[in-house]
Amino acid sequence: MSFNTFGHLFRVTTWGESHGPALGATVDGCPPGIALDAAMIQQWLDRRKPGQNKHTTQRREPDEVEILSGVYEGQTTGTPIQLMIRNVDQRSKDYGNILETFRPGHADITYFQKYGLRDPRGGGRSSARETAARVAAGGVARAVLQSLAPGLSVRGYMVQMGSMSIDRRRFDWDQIGANPFWTPDAVAAEEWETYLGAIRKDGNSVGAVIEVTASGVPAGIGAPVYAKLDTELAAAMMSINAVKGVEIGDGMASAALTGVQNADEIRMGPNGPEYQSNHAGGILGGIATGQDVVVRFAVKPTSSIHTPRGSVTRDGENTEVVTKGRHDPCVGIRAVPVGEAMMACVLLDQILLHRAQVGDGPRGRIGG
Amino acid sequence: MSFNTFGHLFRVTTWGESHGPALGATVDGCPPGIALDAAMIQQWLDRRKPGQNKHTTQRREPDEVEILSGVYEGQTTGTPIQLMIRNVDQRSKDYGNILETFRPGHADITYFQKYGLRDPRGGGRSSARETAARVAAGGVARAVLQSLAPGLSVRGYMVQMGSMSIDRRRFDWDQIGANPFWTPDAVAAEEWETYLGAIRKDGNSVGAVIEVTASGVPAGIGAPVYAKLDTELAAAMMSINAVKGVEIGDGMASAALTGVQNADEIRMGPNGPEYQSNHAGGILGGIATGQDVVVRFAVKPTSSIHTPRGSVTRDGENTEVVTKGRHDPCVGIRAVPVGEAMMACVLLDQILLHRAQVGDGPRGRIGG
Amino acid sequence: MSFNTFGHLFRVTTWGESHGPALGATVDGCPPGIALDAAMIQQWLDRRKPGQNKHTTQRREPDEVEILSGVYEGQTTGTPIQLMIRNVDQRSKDYGNILETFRPGHADITYFQKYGLRDPRGGGRSSARETAARVAAGGVARAVLQSLAPGLSVRGYMVQMGSMSIDRRRFDWDQIGANPFWTPDAVAAEEWETYLGAIRKDGNSVGAVIEVTASGVPAGIGAPVYAKLDTELAAAMMSINAVKGVEIGDGMASAALTGVQNADEIRMGPNGPEYQSNHAGGILGGIATGQDVVVRFAVKPTSSIHTPRGSVTRDGENTEVVTKGRHDPCVGIRAVPVGEAMMACVLLDQILLHRAQVGDGPRGRIGG
Amino acid sequence: MSFNTFGHLFRVTTWGESHGPALGATVDGCPPGIALDAAMIQQWLDRRKPGQNKHTTQRREPDEVEILSGVYEGQTTGTPIQLMIRNVDQRSKDYGNILETFRPGHADITYFQKYGLRDPRGGGRSSARETAARVAAGGVARAVLQSLAPGLSVRGYMVQMGSMSIDRRRFDWDQIGANPFWTPDAVAAEEWETYLGAIRKDGNSVGAVIEVTASGVPAGIGAPVYAKLDTELAAAMMSINAVKGVEIGDGMASAALTGVQNADEIRMGPNGPEYQSNHAGGILGGIATGQDVVVRFAVKPTSSIHTPRGSVTRDGENTEVVTKGRHDPCVGIRAVPVGEAMMACVLLDQILLHRAQVGDGPRGRIGG
Repeated sequence: MSFNTFGHLFRVTTWGESHGPALGATVDGCPPGIALDAAMIQQWLDRRKPGQNKHTTQRREPDEVEILSGVYEGQTTGTPIQLMIRNVDQRSKDYGNILETFRPGHADITYFQKYGLRDPRGGGRSSARETAARVAAGGVARAVLQSLAPGLSVRGYMVQMGSMSIDRRRFDWDQIGANPFWTPDAVAAEEWETYLGAIRKDGNSVGAVIEVTASGVPAGIGAPVYAKLDTELAAAMMSINAVKGVEIGDGMASAALTGVQNADEIRMGPNGPEYQSNHAGGILGGIATGQDVVVRFAVKPTSSIHTPRGSVTRDGENTEVVTKGRHDPCVGIRAVPVGEAMMACVLLDQILLHRAQVGDGPRGRIGG
Repeated sequence: MSFNTFGHLFRVTTWGESHGPALGATVDGCPPGIALDAAMIQQWLDRRKPGQNKHTTQRREPDEVEILSGVYEGQTTGTPIQLMIRNVDQRSKDYGNILETFRPGHADITYFQKYGLRDPRGGGRSSARETAARVAAGGVARAVLQSLAPGLSVRGYMVQMGSMSIDRRRFDWDQIGANPFWTPDAVAAEEWETYLGAIRKDGNSVGAVIEVTASGVPAGIGAPVYAKLDTELAAAMMSINAVKGVEIGDGMASAALTGVQNADEIRMGPNGPEYQSNHAGGILGGIATGQDVVVRFAVKPTSSIHTPRGSVTRDGENTEVVTKGRHDPCVGIRAVPVGEAMMACVLLDQILLHRAQVGDGPRGRIGG
Repeated sequence: MSFNTFGHLFRVTTWGESHGPALGATVDGCPPGIALDAAMIQQWLDRRKPGQNKHTTQRREPDEVEILSGVYEGQTTGTPIQLMIRNVDQRSKDYGNILETFRPGHADITYFQKYGLRDPRGGGRSSARETAARVAAGGVARAVLQSLAPGLSVRGYMVQMGSMSIDRRRFDWDQIGANPFWTPDAVAAEEWETYLGAIRKDGNSVGAVIEVTASGVPAGIGAPVYAKLDTELAAAMMSINAVKGVEIGDGMASAALTGVQNADEIRMGPNGPEYQSNHAGGILGGIATGQDVVVRFAVKPTSSIHTPRGSVTRDGENTEVVTKGRHDPCVGIRAVPVGEAMMACVLLDQILLHRAQVGDGPRGRIGG
Repeated sequence: MSFNTFGHLFRVTTWGESHGPALGATVDGCPPGIALDAAMIQQWLDRRKPGQNKHTTQRREPDEVEILSGVYEGQTTGTPIQLMIRNVDQRSKDYGNILETFRPGHADITYFQKYGLRDPRGGGRSSARETAARVAAGGVARAVLQSLAPGLSVRGYMVQMGSMSIDRRRFDWDQIGANPFWTPDAVAAEEWETYLGAIRKDGNSVGAVIEVTASGVPAGIGAPVYAKLDTELAAAMMSINAVKGVEIGDGMASAALTGVQNADEIRMGPNGPEYQSNHAGGILGGIATGQDVVVRFAVKPTSSIHTPRGSVTRDGENTEVVTKGRHDPCVGIRAVPVGEAMMACVLLDQILLHRAQVGDGPRGRIGG
């Protein structure tokens, strides 16, 4: 089925196609009495907005969110919140040639195979524009988290572009907002600038790795077995367009560790247990330890490129595809606020689930 | 909440603790009229069974599955199938010392923080024994797949132990069943034998990477946005104990590719479109292309080790933890059949979802 | 939680308040390739529209539906369909006096107790305006049913107003569209006309019983135990505002029957088994028999009346409440198309569920 | 699909057939730290147990429940609780003749039409034995409610047998346990005794109406639109075997009331608002008012009767069916504890949902 909903209790259903009249998110299960207005959501959409610099698609969408329901006099009422974003700058003619052919590496062919038809304008539902709805919903989640988990912060940033990783020794939180790549490494930002310029000029594209860190996550949220915090995060990140891998803490590198290396040792601190390392990425047995929750995901290079690649037509003829139109040479850049939004939604959902089963806050206290 | 269920239509709820009287899986949504008996499920449990060689825990569980409902005269009836496995060899006294302390890197501490109490015997619900229930449910899924997608096969194998990867040029499907590590590389199997012996002798443990390949997956199954095939697989694999990373196709390495490299070019073959490569791991836009679906996941090293590590007691005192009892030096070995079971369950669930929305088989045909 | 979604596979989430900017329905899981446009949905909304005669509220809402997503060139694409209806004629000042007091028999007081705040304008989310969104979603369901179950028809009608029931001997399908009460009994329609005029003049209101009959329902849809067809219908109808009772077939009167009377005897007919009666309302063991599926539900009288009733203020003072504003003297009239919409949605959902588990059509054939 | 689960957060999945080796319930989402043992559940099963007097089937099942998981040292751990009841007294030969024919009014025919096969022994999954699993799960719900909503009580009783209703003026809570019909009217009990004896002697059966009252329900639980408290109760009761109608408060009789009659007037009392009547059955707009929640449901007469009724064979021949074997002449009697169990499960589920979204207790207080 379609299943365009995520979340168990804080349930977000996104809808809309790239070049339809509008897109949005239906947010159900939001607690009541939370201060919320369009501006609080708009700030996050503005971060994601295309056309802000030469490294993202030149499509110019204002991405203005309207709240159609669920908010009364600046407060959530506990009923569904409808967030709508009108599409404005649809230049569908740019995409005319893709109706009969399928871009290699793109969802064109599988949508056709699944449904027998598809909305080809701008990739339809498979477009990265769908992520605007996620960012809007994430704005609601953040507003609720401010109230339910005041110290919690969620921050995303790029740690790798193509084969070039950041140097962790240069990690500077303040750099993240100061460059077009949301990277904490100022030196990397400069190198990537040059690199990505060349990629774009070549009519090519490149992948990236995004990391999202949540600090101040209450110990005890999460669940064993299937609604594990890490399971939910893996699903949330893998559901973003073009993501092909997800890691928690040390991720794939955990395989190369021994048990002695991997054990995050614990010492008692003034406010409770303190971990000496964070290989686990803040999650043990699916449940938050209280440390930073750290997730990474790989975004593959944009499949819409100006370089010809072999493909087939709907009629079964071999052909070469060159995608015209405006595209991101590194779609990973715009995935940063999307990853943050997903993290915020998942954490809120898990906080609500925990509150349902156990009540507020963790149950077991260490050191009385 | 607890949420011990996975799947949308083929719904598996696992239950049971490591040292309770029994564990099992409640399987709802199974199609009727499928040939099924205990032996068909038992064969997969036997693959996973502990104590089969010196590389897995010496706990000796027969892991005999009983079918308590949903099958009549050798056929599924369409009603819930209850699969029960009695626990036999519980040596709970081995674990007595862990009630008051928390193993670093283990779910002991987070279960306590979440629930305020826990079943400490053998890790309770967080034990890898829970995966026996998954393997049993996977046996049901495989029986149904034989009928609904006859050409489909699901095969798991180990591709990395510690920092030692297989050599893909030596990949041999027939080797997988011929060594204790389920690896397709006979040379690696020998090296790992020596390596793991040393690890065990040291009272240490080590991680691993498992790959699962599904061949013959019908093009068109999957879904856009949140019930994507890759999303579901990521969730399924990340929900397995000790998994810290999941990759589809090229996975994290996709980030280092350019769009030109990443595009799996398509040429028309005698039976439809043929892909020239499989960077995508058989999934585009959340929907199966018909190529092999390839998933990899990293299993961290067992946290229960014989080497002392710093931790705290429930009373808040610093302490050193040494885990006694019988443990797997590389729990990744037993994760192979578990990964297969999860793949089988997810594919069946997606086939049922596709059938619900679109009917049998893919809708759009390429080349008339 | 809020849980404003119904359906398992054909999932409808309604959103919006009576006097907010808009309301609507997010429809997920719709099969692809179904002919659909706004006019096909509008016809059902027009049936429900208020202000059409003196027996319904004089609020004049055009209730024009816009399709914002999920349809391309007149066909459903399989992705979420967003249906939006702008609110136009909000005369909120009429409701000013109800912010501080609670109408007896109305959701005012419980919303306040639950959420601590509420949108008081026109009843906010608890208004019968929410049902416009259901009718719109029902229009989508009907379009799909035309394709998936061509002979299936869904028809609702009023069988009782106040204490006055129709005479079943005068039942005439063609009368239903010919009177303002959607009743199949022309004589009753005349009597009710006079009766309801008096009720309205008195500043009073009255309840009603609606019946919905579905013909051509495929035998075999439904499910045992919890997703029973009758369970789903009971939930669907009881979820409509002001409904206090739901009956399948003989309903509450079944209690007074003996087993001999209640047994719907079966005789073999030319096209399969034929039932000699329909006490069961077309459902046995939660599964459709192929007979007419018959559901009835009672709608209580509108709680917003012009007659003073004792209540309390938010501050805890006793008071008398008289509701001004425009209200339906018999809200049951407008519930007829809503009941039809819910029936259509439930039947489609069950057809999709059946198709998922068993495939198309019933499995077991009688008389082979 | 099968969908044998009910509840959103307190999720109960029942499994098992009448004459299979066992049946039971998988209970997920139970809060941790609740005192629970088998005896606490057994007391409710003992109330429902068949064979206790001549008015229920003479099948003798001890119905002993075993807790297989989720409880450690007398307390729930927050993980799934598996409740298993072994079937003991299966006399399947009694049912031999029903494999080839279909009992009129029974699920035999629809199961066959849906699935193409069925477990005919004792009705398989459609047997009333399934309700034993519900009663066991209800026992868990009651244990949790004792802790989460201490003043809450749930009591069921029979108010009508055949066409004979109780006299409400003789309503006496203490009578309920004192007669075989769980009726609060001692005079009715005597009359029914004679009546049912005659029915049984005739090889006939008769229907009944059960009422369940919950007192001490916290104001504010429930939800608008689809997870309404009344919606959930309607679904819960209609999901019980043989139920054909569900009413909340005045139920179907609401239709005959005017708005003036139906308004439950409110006056301020020492502890908050007090209602002067309870036409609404304790629920307004889907949310509990704090009054008694009152649900009624009609149970049709048992379809397995000793009187011949016309039916068809699987081969399509007309035939007469006489059911042998042991059956309840009034299956409604055993539905009393089942209705209570469903009420307990629904209320707990709604309390958890409310706690998730809003926190503990109602939000808005009347009278400061």
